[in-house]
Amino acid sequence: MRAEIVSVGTELLLGQIVNTHASFLGRELAELGIDLHRIVTVGDNLERAAAVLREARERAELTVATGGLGPTQDDLTAQALAKAWGLPLEEHPGARSMVETFFRRRGRQVPAANRQQYLLPRGAEALPNPHGTAPGVWLEAGGRLAVLLPGPPGELVPMFREQVAPRLAGRGGAVIRSRVLHVLAMGEPRVEEALDGLLGGGNPTLAPLVSGGAVHLRLTAKAPDQAAAAALLAPLEAAVRQRLGPRVWGADEETLEEVLGRRLRGRGLSLALGESCTGGLVAHRLTQVPGSSEYLLLSVVAYAVAAKERLLGVDGSLVRREGVVSAAVAVRMAQGARQAVGADIGLGVTGYAGPAGGPEGPAGLVFGALADAAGVVTRRWEFPGLRVQVKERAAQELLTLLYRRLEGF
Amino acid sequence: MRAEIVSVGTELLLGQIVNTHASFLGRELAELGIDLHRIVTVGDNLERAAAVLREARERAELTVATGGLGPTQDDLTAQALAKAWGLPLEEHPGARSMVETFFRRRGRQVPAANRQQYLLPRGAEALPNPHGTAPGVWLEAGGRLAVLLPGPPGELVPMFREQVAPRLAGRGGAVIRSRVLHVLAMGEPRVEEALDGLLGGGNPTLAPLVSGGAVHLRLTAKAPDQAAAAALLAPLEAAVRQRLGPRVWGADEETLEEVLGRRLRGRGLSLALGESCTGGLVAHRLTQVPGSSEYLLLSVVAYAVAAKERLLGVDGSLVRREGVVSAAVAVRMAQGARQAVGADIGLGVTGYAGPAGGPEGPAGLVFGALADAAGVVTRRWEFPGLRVQVKERAAQELLTLLYRRLEGF
Repeated sequence: MRAEIVSVGTELLLGQIVNTHASFLGRELAELGIDLHRIVTVGDNLERAAAVLREARERAELTVATGGLGPTQDDLTAQALAKAWGLPLEEHPGARSMVETFFRRRGRQVPAANRQQYLLPRGAEALPNPHGTAPGVWLEAGGRLAVLLPGPPGELVPMFREQVAPRLAGRGGAVIRSRVLHVLAMGEPRVEEALDGLLGGGNPTLAPLVSGGAVHLRLTAKAPDQAAAAALLAPLEAAVRQRLGPRVWGADEETLEEVLGRRLRGRGLSLALGESCTGGLVAHRLTQVPGSSEYLLLSVVAYAVAAKERLLGVDGSLVRREGVVSAAVAVRMAQGARQAVGADIGLGVTGYAGPAGGPEGPAGLVFGALADAAGVVTRRWEFPGLRVQVKERAAQELLTLLYRRLEGF
Repeated sequence: MRAEIVSVGTELLLGQIVNTHASFLGRELAELGIDLHRIVTVGDNLERAAAVLREARERAELTVATGGLGPTQDDLTAQALAKAWGLPLEEHPGARSMVETFFRRRGRQVPAANRQQYLLPRGAEALPNPHGTAPGVWLEAGGRLAVLLPGPPGELVPMFREQVAPRLAGRGGAVIRSRVLHVLAMGEPRVEEALDGLLGGGNPTLAPLVSGGAVHLRLTAKAPDQAAAAALLAPLEAAVRQRLGPRVWGADEETLEEVLGRRLRGRGLSLALGESCTGGLVAHRLTQVPGSSEYLLLSVVAYAVAAKERLLGVDGSLVRREGVVSAAVAVRMAQGARQAVGADIGLGVTGYAGPAGGPEGPAGLVFGALADAAGVVTRRWEFPGLRVQVKERAAQELLTLLYRRLEGF
């Protein structure tokens, strides 16, 4: 089954928004084994949108169009579809009732403008939209299928996943399933060496990606259905995990802070931070996780030397002797934060985020430390890039240090 | 002048990357006054890419294509263009010398694979690429123009801005210029009321946008050239600023933390934070700005009650009497942070980021406070949304509180 996506919206042509819908649908169609041949973006213009929908119908069995189902004059995708397919536009009782119900629940009459939302091409089916006024459209005729989805992401994503994907399942020849494994504490050459003999492959395939200074592994399988694809991926994932061990810290959308949260909670361990050059980013990341108040007790973002001295007990003489950007100060910050609230583990980080360096070295020089009952571990890093990237890399490496301590390697 | 964008890359169809190039080019073409009619994405397939380029040439005077200029077998955009335009592909001496120079500077011979990068359609001009191996392509014939740009953003953006945009300038009938003004402390209805008579308009136009709970104003002018467009925008911007006063805090890419940084620096004021539900996000935002160490002395991210007591001097009895999520505790956190390092201004924030609420109220209930030599100001908010959004809104409102104090309203 060949497909094309048609994205309708002048704001896409003007670059005021990025076409994330097309990438979402591209991934979903790939998983359904449907070959996407083109994505065409066109403005809110009846003639041009109709032309694009007509051409898509000539080339592809499936057209998925997004946007232009709202109540304004610019919303003309249903009308363009009717024109492209040579069908009359008429009031659809099901769509009318969906729109009426939406407004009745809010104690309102259907505003005049919203009445166009129940005008559909003859023969179309209306798809209920629990999250907005615009019903979706499913139109099948002459061996061709068109699906119209509303533009707001909170309406499009559930409508596609709950109503469209299940009906498309089985129409593609084969499904493609991917999984991404996240790796830490290992560069690309060492990962490739460790995975010798597993990389590449016909089906499933294994490919490394490098992003943000870390290696990720994409596993992809093609099979007649999702279960068969999952069965192809499972042994490859097991083999990768067996070779890399705990250096594989997570998969897909998982974040390192979620994984750390589960580990800390599982062992009943608490954490305190002394941050300097990361400026609160480590605490911000850890507190994105619901329930993080159970294990993250404190972060002292001690930007000023006086703050390091008074709140983390960093000696003025230590700063004078070692420099404020030093392993010794990172250790003292980790210990100071830990002691301030009696946490099990303390983390400290000090460095030059940039653009300027300082007496101890250039921008990007960062020291990290972990302190717990067993003692201290320190690290020295030199990160490339701008201030924003240095903060990100430093936060990532500090969390990596914590992960390694918890995993014992 | 009509234009179409052709994005070449299977990874775009699979949704592995988002087409940010198309939005970048959409904005740039709009500024040049060139009407973009379509964006078409196609995979790394010679026949299909050639078909798309042929159709674009039939409809539009200008085609801008991105991607597929690299050294691999999948890189076939130049070949597809030659096929689409019916031109032979041949070695281009200028392109050859660019590729050879790139490798010679790195002390290397041109690898065999990279030789395809100097095969261009006959009559094309090569555009130098200071940031990579792939020369760009400029092909003009029979009243049609095609421009091919390399896919990596670090190569595409400078090549377009430095070489393509100046040559396209003047070919569009008129340029479009936009400016976005950022507003705080005023909801959409009040902004619209205050701007009565200015909103809408033929040329320039003024339109409100709401995003992240705040109002932004887009000013757009169409004129024969950039200077004339700027001259249309200037009096409209002045009129908006005159009506809204300091509630317009910035424009375009500017961030509130940059604006606050300039104000604090300009007046020699220092700042300390006591954060709870924002989890370090306020400090993280403020420290994204180079030079923020001059005015941000400290943030105590006191997630645990013990941390609030020991590091910010929040009384246990106050917590028991008022509740940990209360205006009184926010004030004490602001004062405690301020006193810990002798800062001029202290900010405090406490609340329920969610998903769970607590004894004082639901998730999303947040108190903020500002303390300085003149006294204290407090705020109570109830934010909708998930944990991540509550953190963002709370940080934004706390920075707004600081901005208003500095601006005196």
